[in-house]
Amino acid sequence: MTSNVTSPVMFVAGDGGSWRIENIDRVIGDGLNIAPRLYIADGNNYPAENGVWSLIGTSSNGRYVRRSEADDLAAVQEGLGRPEATCGALIPIRKSAAWWDLAQDERRSIMEEQSHHIGIGMEYLPAISRKLYHSRDLGEPFDFLTWFEYRPEHTRIFEQLVERLRNTTEWQYVEREVDIRLRREV
Amino acid sequence: MTSNVTSPVMFVAGDGGSWRIENIDRVIGDGLNIAPRLYIADGNNYPAENGVWSLIGTSSNGRYVRRSEADDLAAVQEGLGRPEATCGALIPIRKSAAWWDLAQDERRSIMEEQSHHIGIGMEYLPAISRKLYHSRDLGEPFDFLTWFEYRPEHTRIFEQLVERLRNTTEWQYVEREVDIRLRREV
Repeated sequence: MTSNVTSPVMFVAGDGGSWRIENIDRVIGDGLNIAPRLYIADGNNYPAENGVWSLIGTSSNGRYVRRSEADDLAAVQEGLGRPEATCGALIPIRKSAAWWDLAQDERRSIMEEQSHHIGIGMEYLPAISRKLYHSRDLGEPFDFLTWFEYRPEHTRIFEQLVERLRNTTEWQYVEREVDIRLRREV
Repeated sequence: MTSNVTSPVMFVAGDGGSWRIENIDRVIGDGLNIAPRLYIADGNNYPAENGVWSLIGTSSNGRYVRRSEADDLAAVQEGLGRPEATCGALIPIRKSAAWWDLAQDERRSIMEEQSHHIGIGMEYLPAISRKLYHSRDLGEPFDFLTWFEYRPEHTRIFEQLVERLRNTTEWQYVEREVDIRLRREV
């Protein structure tokens, strides 16, 4: 489990960075322009130039995960930066006003009891590492930026994970989604 | 109930603004310096000068309030800006790492089932209008900025409201709190 410290990060698509961008898919709503590489900068090292596009998020506290779920996740997940996990995916998402007008218990119910978002993600641990960044309070164009890392041989199960989430009730509230696939080249 | 739109606001303590600062109390941890007046700027009109101090927050979605509670609140509360509500209070708060390390269900349990934060606030509606701004994801020195407005004759019950909240289990997780009292002078 990622710690609940708030630390900002900037994803910069341009000419630099250790991740080569293989593909950018417009899934729902407006896409993002293609660029050769992705640079991931922490809040103390934002580059002067913002590249083709840049997105900011902050690792923050979980909004929905319960203690029992947090403990289950912590017991099986692996961190980012595993050398053999050379495949990356960055999936920025924005949810609709209808979602944000829901109360906490309604959002939780749709997300987990109806859509099993946490439970589905758990099935793919430890193969698929994942980190969520919150962008909504920062006035960014997306509400969330989710970063994934996995080994090349897990590409097929990653597709399955993404596909299952997109077929949930929760995803009916997604009004913009872009799917960026990358390979680490250090 | 405030809408769940994310709109940023900056509270600027200095020489301008329609609110005269009467008092700044250091409740827990470091205080804030005194200044003559408070200016409240929205995100499109941040002033070039930041005054003696300035704090930024954003109205965001509720993190704990359930649908039934939201409906109860909406049925009785009144908005900000009532001409007769000439007393203001700005109470910035930061919670501890121990709080943010808790899972969602643990925070909710401490906040409402044990501390009755929402329920206590409800008892003082519609007299005490309230708006919460989130600052934590913005990397600000406080996690929350709560703004209150009430009529001068409700000053005593406002003190009671604040006192009751400070005696809750939830407040054991507050590591910094400043209490700023103001009068509207337009």
